[in-house]
Amino acid sequence: MATKWWGWGEEHRTFVLPDAQQFWAFVRSRLGEPGVSQRIGSLAEVSVPPSHLESKALDALRRVTGTSSLTTDSADRAVHSLGKSYCDLVRIRRGEIPHATDAVVYPETEEEVAALLDAAAEQEIAVIPFGGGTSVLGGIEPTGAKPTVTLDLRRMNRMLRLDPLAATATLEAGVLGPSLEEQLNAQGFTLGHFPQSFECSSLGGWIATRSAGQNSTLYGKIEDMVESLRMAFPGDTIATPAVPAAAAGPDLNQIIAGSEGILGVITQATVRLAPMPRRSDYRGYLFPAFQAGVETARELMQAGLKPAVLRLSDEAETGISLAMRAPPRGLRAVAEGLYLAARRISLEGSTLMIVGFDGEEEQVRSDWRRAQGILRRQQGVPLGHGPAQVWNRSRFDHPYLRDLLLDHAIMVDTLETATTWDRYLALHSSVRDAIARAMDGRGLVMAHLSHAYTDGASVYYTFLARQREGQQLEQWQEVKIAATEAILAAGGALSHHHGIGSDHRPWMPQYLGAAGIRALAALKQTFDPRGIMNPGKLMAD
Amino acid sequence: MATKWWGWGEEHRTFVLPDAQQFWAFVRSRLGEPGVSQRIGSLAEVSVPPSHLESKALDALRRVTGTSSLTTDSADRAVHSLGKSYCDLVRIRRGEIPHATDAVVYPETEEEVAALLDAAAEQEIAVIPFGGGTSVLGGIEPTGAKPTVTLDLRRMNRMLRLDPLAATATLEAGVLGPSLEEQLNAQGFTLGHFPQSFECSSLGGWIATRSAGQNSTLYGKIEDMVESLRMAFPGDTIATPAVPAAAAGPDLNQIIAGSEGILGVITQATVRLAPMPRRSDYRGYLFPAFQAGVETARELMQAGLKPAVLRLSDEAETGISLAMRAPPRGLRAVAEGLYLAARRISLEGSTLMIVGFDGEEEQVRSDWRRAQGILRRQQGVPLGHGPAQVWNRSRFDHPYLRDLLLDHAIMVDTLETATTWDRYLALHSSVRDAIARAMDGRGLVMAHLSHAYTDGASVYYTFLARQREGQQLEQWQEVKIAATEAILAAGGALSHHHGIGSDHRPWMPQYLGAAGIRALAALKQTFDPRGIMNPGKLMAD
Repeated sequence: MATKWWGWGEEHRTFVLPDAQQFWAFVRSRLGEPGVSQRIGSLAEVSVPPSHLESKALDALRRVTGTSSLTTDSADRAVHSLGKSYCDLVRIRRGEIPHATDAVVYPETEEEVAALLDAAAEQEIAVIPFGGGTSVLGGIEPTGAKPTVTLDLRRMNRMLRLDPLAATATLEAGVLGPSLEEQLNAQGFTLGHFPQSFECSSLGGWIATRSAGQNSTLYGKIEDMVESLRMAFPGDTIATPAVPAAAAGPDLNQIIAGSEGILGVITQATVRLAPMPRRSDYRGYLFPAFQAGVETARELMQAGLKPAVLRLSDEAETGISLAMRAPPRGLRAVAEGLYLAARRISLEGSTLMIVGFDGEEEQVRSDWRRAQGILRRQQGVPLGHGPAQVWNRSRFDHPYLRDLLLDHAIMVDTLETATTWDRYLALHSSVRDAIARAMDGRGLVMAHLSHAYTDGASVYYTFLARQREGQQLEQWQEVKIAATEAILAAGGALSHHHGIGSDHRPWMPQYLGAAGIRALAALKQTFDPRGIMNPGKLMAD
Repeated sequence: MATKWWGWGEEHRTFVLPDAQQFWAFVRSRLGEPGVSQRIGSLAEVSVPPSHLESKALDALRRVTGTSSLTTDSADRAVHSLGKSYCDLVRIRRGEIPHATDAVVYPETEEEVAALLDAAAEQEIAVIPFGGGTSVLGGIEPTGAKPTVTLDLRRMNRMLRLDPLAATATLEAGVLGPSLEEQLNAQGFTLGHFPQSFECSSLGGWIATRSAGQNSTLYGKIEDMVESLRMAFPGDTIATPAVPAAAAGPDLNQIIAGSEGILGVITQATVRLAPMPRRSDYRGYLFPAFQAGVETARELMQAGLKPAVLRLSDEAETGISLAMRAPPRGLRAVAEGLYLAARRISLEGSTLMIVGFDGEEEQVRSDWRRAQGILRRQQGVPLGHGPAQVWNRSRFDHPYLRDLLLDHAIMVDTLETATTWDRYLALHSSVRDAIARAMDGRGLVMAHLSHAYTDGASVYYTFLARQREGQQLEQWQEVKIAATEAILAAGGALSHHHGIGSDHRPWMPQYLGAAGIRALAALKQTFDPRGIMNPGKLMAD
């Protein structure tokens, strides 16, 4: 798949607005008149400094990689030097790459990775593991402190084994979402992991960042799916035992998951699979207020139900979703109005929940019977399958919309956290207000609940504002700081599923505490005593 | 509760055999004529060497503990120097304690624990955290290399907070099972954690050893229930973030869980709760062979069902269960015979499954409908609720039976592992055969499947043989080595839920690999640079 260097995903794919006029009218009414943002015309215009790797170092790397899989080509280096965050896109559209990687290697085997790490350690070259390159937190960006080589793992994309009895599969870490699912589906299985980045992100990247998919409430976060792992690090490779569970000291899988490349390169994983669901039944419900929806989500989870999707937009997000849909006309509009009026609810100011179950017929029916009891008690108004189908069709599309908004000089980004139910509503509003204040009250903030647990759930924010011309990065930074401070003050996770990278790194000492950071540093020192692995991520070097 | 120093549990409670004559006839037929094993008459007869703590060290400890909570009394030291393994009981019944702890402290607060660890580090005194003292792997036994103080945490047994919204509770680590459940049940919740040691073991001990309860297939292992932890270690205390899930580096909870006291003392935990189930419906099924039962268990798990109990005895264990029950007489015996004959199955050589669901009425009914489809397809013969009631009534009783067998000079111990479904049957038989061979073919080995997952399950062995007079420990050691080697050769976990302690320690390098051990050593070095925390457990000092 040819991808956009200046934006998200497939090269020629753009976001199609169901009703463009209505959407831009909405944007204009909330943010003011959008502008136009220029971008450079081609990758060749990106200013990439020459490779810092001396020929001695390059020769040492080429001795282990062979010549075909290592490149110092400027364009290759450019697309491997930034991720896909808002700031990354702002910079690449300007042609700016503050610190370019000095070489890109495409290893094909674990042995090659291991040999490369040994050579890099000897030459004091920093190594950045690169899966799909979709980090939104600076997770794959060189720091510029050392000559750097980026390991693009996408050639390591084979399924090595699928065991239908154990319902596990062993795959190389560089396999991307669609290829992984295709191979599993062919044998009747699914991993059930569908992050928004699904089309472009890799198994190894998911594990290294503790990714969560849109169906995580049923299937778990990626770290729950990992049965065992292999990770190459300078000097050796670690393989964790492939057992369903153990009581043999700290869990090594849970040390490697979330390590974001600072300990080594995840080369393989054995993951737990689920059978392809025979039935998926997702539906929309409308609640008069966010609080009633949150209460419903909590009750569903604590009743032991495991919805494949449980997603609740707050009032603001529901509003923008409505602005984006093709509005009903004629008789359908009348019918919708009558239906809602009879239930004493209006689209305006209400909140939309998408909820549904995957599995066998009998189970999905039974789950729905139980869920309906809770939904009715909380006065959820059923909207049928329509809203869920709309969501399902467009579930991987929003990053494409971001490109469109950037073209119109609109800042748009997302951030997320998770907290316990007792703190949920207070966190939701205090972080929302902090983001709004940081945009001087002239932006738009919306949020949804997703990734629910018995003890709490994630909150996922999207914020938009007109770009501050010439100060796009500073403007974003102000919002990021305000949001993160508010999240930690309200008892939220520093991240629920985006990870830490370099953007969240300054808050890690506060979040984990001194002892937590020391534990992390001890692991770093053990696996990577020379400090070559993905410098500047997770913790200070 | 006054407890037996020479055996398990409550002082005056003994195992009541439903039909003693039948049971002993069975034992005689399999093991030969049981003997009689003498034991010393009172704790005063145990030879406890004088405390090695010099008065300077004692004074330093007393300065932080106060005088009331520290004791060097011989009897106190004796009962804190051994756990409750077969070898522990053999030794204490003889009055032998190879290495006695030198003092016992009963701290009441985390601050006291922290101050004590600081004082101990300064004085180079080893510290052993002691919860319920039920380790079966030498987890709380001093090594004798250093003066040692044991921290009995049972006075730290308060529930600090129960949050009904988040469905979590924060408890001090020394709380024992029954008190914990009582406090939660009073507010409509359960932890759902019922290991066989439940009546005598503590929350902190469960977490430190990655314990699994008999309902773990529904509620998870204890490490799955932990939302956050506090652990005191020499020089500081670590508190992990109290969030439902995060993507912020390696999971600190999963580093502390399973650390068996070698990093510090778990002082508090916030755990996820479940509502008290409105309905529990457990039933017995008979399968013509173990393989059909294992296949059934696998299918139940992979269909997404979460039985609260899923336990399958192999042919040998089913046989001894039958020998232990009060046999049906008269018309009931005739009815049982006719029922089984009509279904072409005989008790002899078949395997018994106990399976059932907890939860809300509607869900339990639906789960049972789905389960019955699978059970029927695998030709499971329903035996109704009777066998499940018998199991449920006696679920914490087997350690009492061990005392009775020891009185008759019979070696009896259990060991366990877990493996993936594809390796399950091969592991089950190869480990069984290895144990049998190590008992020269003159013992009895049985096993059951429990703690099931989508990718595999635990295998739990019980083995019995007449004691080799004067060589009880050597006899046991031969079995242990043979079983552990067979487990690792067959791809099993070194332990699924008993832990490592000192008994499994020799195999840790083989099980985790050199890199795994180095990671563990790095954590040890960080939290406990002086090496005072529970020496000799998990890894070599």
